[in-house]
Amino acid sequence: MNAKVSIIMGSTSDLPIMEKAAKVLDEFEIPFEMYALSAHRTPAEVENFAKNADMRGIEVIIAGAGMAAALPGVIAANTPLPVIGLPISASLSGIDALLAIVQMPPAIPVATVGIDAGLNAGLLAIQILSAADSTLKAKLIAYKSTLKDKIVKANEDLKKVEYRFKIN
Amino acid sequence: MNAKVSIIMGSTSDLPIMEKAAKVLDEFEIPFEMYALSAHRTPAEVENFAKNADMRGIEVIIAGAGMAAALPGVIAANTPLPVIGLPISASLSGIDALLAIVQMPPAIPVATVGIDAGLNAGLLAIQILSAADSTLKAKLIAYKSTLKDKIVKANEDLKKVEYRFKIN
Amino acid sequence: MNAKVSIIMGSTSDLPIMEKAAKVLDEFEIPFEMYALSAHRTPAEVENFAKNADMRGIEVIIAGAGMAAALPGVIAANTPLPVIGLPISASLSGIDALLAIVQMPPAIPVATVGIDAGLNAGLLAIQILSAADSTLKAKLIAYKSTLKDKIVKANEDLKKVEYRFKIN
Amino acid sequence: MNAKVSIIMGSTSDLPIMEKAAKVLDEFEIPFEMYALSAHRTPAEVENFAKNADMRGIEVIIAGAGMAAALPGVIAANTPLPVIGLPISASLSGIDALLAIVQMPPAIPVATVGIDAGLNAGLLAIQILSAADSTLKAKLIAYKSTLKDKIVKANEDLKKVEYRFKIN
Amino acid sequence: MNAKVSIIMGSTSDLPIMEKAAKVLDEFEIPFEMYALSAHRTPAEVENFAKNADMRGIEVIIAGAGMAAALPGVIAANTPLPVIGLPISASLSGIDALLAIVQMPPAIPVATVGIDAGLNAGLLAIQILSAADSTLKAKLIAYKSTLKDKIVKANEDLKKVEYRFKIN
Amino acid sequence: MNAKVSIIMGSTSDLPIMEKAAKVLDEFEIPFEMYALSAHRTPAEVENFAKNADMRGIEVIIAGAGMAAALPGVIAANTPLPVIGLPISASLSGIDALLAIVQMPPAIPVATVGIDAGLNAGLLAIQILSAADSTLKAKLIAYKSTLKDKIVKANEDLKKVEYRFKIN
Amino acid sequence: MNAKVSIIMGSTSDLPIMEKAAKVLDEFEIPFEMYALSAHRTPAEVENFAKNADMRGIEVIIAGAGMAAALPGVIAANTPLPVIGLPISASLSGIDALLAIVQMPPAIPVATVGIDAGLNAGLLAIQILSAADSTLKAKLIAYKSTLKDKIVKANEDLKKVEYRFKIN
Amino acid sequence: MNAKVSIIMGSTSDLPIMEKAAKVLDEFEIPFEMYALSAHRTPAEVENFAKNADMRGIEVIIAGAGMAAALPGVIAANTPLPVIGLPISASLSGIDALLAIVQMPPAIPVATVGIDAGLNAGLLAIQILSAADSTLKAKLIAYKSTLKDKIVKANEDLKKVEYRFKIN
Repeated sequence: MNAKVSIIMGSTSDLPIMEKAAKVLDEFEIPFEMYALSAHRTPAEVENFAKNADMRGIEVIIAGAGMAAALPGVIAANTPLPVIGLPISASLSGIDALLAIVQMPPAIPVATVGIDAGLNAGLLAIQILSAADSTLKAKLIAYKSTLKDKIVKANEDLKKVEYRFKIN
Repeated sequence: MNAKVSIIMGSTSDLPIMEKAAKVLDEFEIPFEMYALSAHRTPAEVENFAKNADMRGIEVIIAGAGMAAALPGVIAANTPLPVIGLPISASLSGIDALLAIVQMPPAIPVATVGIDAGLNAGLLAIQILSAADSTLKAKLIAYKSTLKDKIVKANEDLKKVEYRFKIN
Repeated sequence: MNAKVSIIMGSTSDLPIMEKAAKVLDEFEIPFEMYALSAHRTPAEVENFAKNADMRGIEVIIAGAGMAAALPGVIAANTPLPVIGLPISASLSGIDALLAIVQMPPAIPVATVGIDAGLNAGLLAIQILSAADSTLKAKLIAYKSTLKDKIVKANEDLKKVEYRFKIN
Repeated sequence: MNAKVSIIMGSTSDLPIMEKAAKVLDEFEIPFEMYALSAHRTPAEVENFAKNADMRGIEVIIAGAGMAAALPGVIAANTPLPVIGLPISASLSGIDALLAIVQMPPAIPVATVGIDAGLNAGLLAIQILSAADSTLKAKLIAYKSTLKDKIVKANEDLKKVEYRFKIN
Repeated sequence: MNAKVSIIMGSTSDLPIMEKAAKVLDEFEIPFEMYALSAHRTPAEVENFAKNADMRGIEVIIAGAGMAAALPGVIAANTPLPVIGLPISASLSGIDALLAIVQMPPAIPVATVGIDAGLNAGLLAIQILSAADSTLKAKLIAYKSTLKDKIVKANEDLKKVEYRFKIN
Repeated sequence: MNAKVSIIMGSTSDLPIMEKAAKVLDEFEIPFEMYALSAHRTPAEVENFAKNADMRGIEVIIAGAGMAAALPGVIAANTPLPVIGLPISASLSGIDALLAIVQMPPAIPVATVGIDAGLNAGLLAIQILSAADSTLKAKLIAYKSTLKDKIVKANEDLKKVEYRFKIN
Repeated sequence: MNAKVSIIMGSTSDLPIMEKAAKVLDEFEIPFEMYALSAHRTPAEVENFAKNADMRGIEVIIAGAGMAAALPGVIAANTPLPVIGLPISASLSGIDALLAIVQMPPAIPVATVGIDAGLNAGLLAIQILSAADSTLKAKLIAYKSTLKDKIVKANEDLKKVEYRFKIN
Repeated sequence: MNAKVSIIMGSTSDLPIMEKAAKVLDEFEIPFEMYALSAHRTPAEVENFAKNADMRGIEVIIAGAGMAAALPGVIAANTPLPVIGLPISASLSGIDALLAIVQMPPAIPVATVGIDAGLNAGLLAIQILSAADSTLKAKLIAYKSTLKDKIVKANEDLKKVEYRFKIN
């Protein structure tokens, strides 16, 4: 079994965020791999990884980075695969990472998700994969339908909040 | 022939940005459709569109919006398809639209590109489609290889810039 | 007795802020209801709620949301009732939620209060209701007159702060 | 006939924004008045205006201001009526005015609309008035239903945009 | 003995910052007074205070406020005395208070100091008073000369920091 | 006749802003001087100027600067006189200059006015001078009373704005 | 004669800013070269350039870039030479480029100058080269001494500005 | 042995950041000195230090400062040596210090590193020194090659993270 998704991070300090992506991929039974790579510390490895990912059968890349977050863009520059950029709040509440990831030059898009939004990075990868996989898309639709459960639970909790003039 | 990509915008004032996405899809010979929809003015139509896009054969949605840009997120809430969010600089240099599009709650990702980055929105759609289409991926690789031409041309222009101590 | 005010939130994690609105409504003896709804997780329920609120006798809606806070705007798009938007500081100190709530497109206003300002959201609802209710307006005027008490108390506390050259 | 809405601005340089509020009130046949007042240049007149507005039959106040925009808050401090704050982009793209209007202390809400959003200020006033006026609410619902026309027109325009692979 | 400086704050929660101003005034033996006043909760008292401060012998006013900090500007609108504005970081790291205090309209200046900079507010008051008081100015010059002591102490501490290649 | 106020700027490109300060000083018949000095280009002259200003009879210094605006702070470091800092919008809408001027370290205050607020810088200087000059204070009170004229004129202009439902 | 400084830019649209660096290098008779390279469009060329610059005799690299400006950091990752980063205001007033260049991860510094500050980038390169070149340092000292001329000229211009109460 | 690098800070509260620079200089066996100096509290000492640093054999200056961080710029104004500016996050997450250091006027560059980036300040000094010192450059290249070790270690850690569908 080959990995379909690569989860790339600059260091293990990013792991608590990146694991949210890993967990949802695991839950959807999508084979994935996890590597640490740095656009600034191991640029040759980044280029090598990006250039070969397509041929190795990877279909989507998730790249998380903080500060002057060049990693997602540099990977995107070296592959035809869609790259999901995940800004991590290592400084300035993550605004520096968000701008460094999303404001890409023309012709090199990075599909950026919210600051520290590891789950959304994983789900976006699944959405992309499901375009060509109707079984996966069915699972995704089922997953989305469970999102309401949290709201249902919230409404049950709210029912228990009592005030004299609250009437539901 | 069915459309594979939907380009959605709030009004025709967004057209100059959205057309950059349209042009690159056309160049790649990908059938697409263009509609105006508003999360705030025609919410029922937005929901209707989003819920049926998958069944109509749409594979990727590009949604552009400015200001309190709810459109991409509301579409993403109603479809299993990947949604590309394109922030448009209608106010505050587009920072309000960028944050309103990218900072999605858990489980509803929007694949956000840069402010006014219409070309990147289009190319990201093509990257997503090419995951299951090797012909398209080959075109994409060919396209990316031409990006260097702009740099080659720039270097030729720079050669003509003359200074006494410039030596290339 | 029907609810006159709806307090809507995305999840019970917003409850500590939303309760400030609930408490002041209770203090003014205004019947209200509290629900959890999400523009992104339960869009159909949001639309359904918004479209029927007027007919159910609701006169004002308070909608709290964080991050890419689409909820107040999407509700406002589906009702003629005034909608009070309450930005919640779930990320970026609440600046993302503030911009996503206040920067609405033309013709769909949201009456936005300050970040995490639950009390002000409740009081604004009371001010709107009191336009057609002279008893309520009298209560509101009485309430406002008590605001000075906090300042009177503060001045008493300041009296006790002693310095050699402080002369009041 | 008494004015029901007061439109207050700091100087006639704000008039192009404030007129958007005036026009929509006129369109809805709601009697209104327009005054220039300044929290910093004519503070006594502001206080006098705010304290008497309720008794003169005013039901909603719209206050526009730029920079360190104290006017809406100072009016709100002196009246039980709902005050709509309209931030005007006289400097820093209006971010200073937005924060100075929306970040009110507890118990003194200002119903803030978007930067330079004169139309939304006017419509919010109408929404507040219509709570106790079913004829007005009917007009408002009718008005809202026409908002889709702009989208319909936009879709007609988009139909005329032709590309080889555009298929709608 | 009359107070020469008034220290005004919105509530006793601002006291830890305002006391830094009080302490330096006390150290310089300048009679001062401290009051709590609110532009939004006790507007009449603010106006009354500001209009009479000059006649009561006050020469400088220090006004601290957070959030939509209208207090310094409203005081400045009602007095010919110089008003020192002290932004307090009650929200958004104090950026909202800074902009709401410093961005005053033409002809109503507020002498703004840094966020939470209570000592600087007090010292600025002393600098203003010393224009007409040569004894006070001499004290101020002496005080400023002691500022170097902190640096001298820092250099002594740095001497003790040892590294192999540190040579001072 | 000696100058009482020094107006200092980094270059003549700042003159259009600084002249607003000069004009109001002239109108109040206060002798002043104007110099160009740069904390970065002529640091020795800045120090020399600041150290001698007090002895030359200067009572207030106005220092305007843009970008990394060190000039007001460096002058303040070398004089017991009050220094008014005027941020000039040479880049980033003046936010860089505002922060570089107002966020002074403890014990070295700069009395900061708004971005490009030349008139307010001049008036603040006059307010400081008037503490010890009752004739000047009388002029200042008279000047402030004329500020209402602009509002009176604005109200006259607004009277001429006609709508069917405008009733003042 | 070998180039000692490399001026690298992403496209010729950056040339008006980069030429300011070129001009000052030419004025100091320092041999330099100019190339267009893109971290995103020609990543292999960037790496190749950076890895060989040292061996080719280059001593300092100036890299200008806008938006998600990865170029300076990626070059710095591949060379032991000092890299000067020049943020260019292609979007968001250059704040995105500034953060993307300056907020580098530990161990990969980029010597960042101000937004669009081409002259400062060139002068910083000269300062670095002059560490080992006393003739160059002498020229630099002479150049710096002429900076005062601009201030002298400004003061002459200010002398000509006449007011009744201006006394210099 | 003379110091080649000066590490300058405003107070010992900056020491935890500045020590990161000291440690890497020590590791590279580069003689350095550490002083506390303040552009605002000891301006004469700053000028004196800056004017004599070159003659004392110093080759690079590292200046750290927070808030309205004038120190690096004022030093740069008084020396031909390259000055590395290190913004310290004493307020506003360090954005005020970053802008106050990097946005220098034309002709006075400061080589700015990231917020609180003490290590990068030290390494940049080493890069500048190594231009004329091939032994040092060799050490620097060796040091850079060890940066990959952290990534290698991270990959080993990631190997241990187990999921059912993780396949590396």
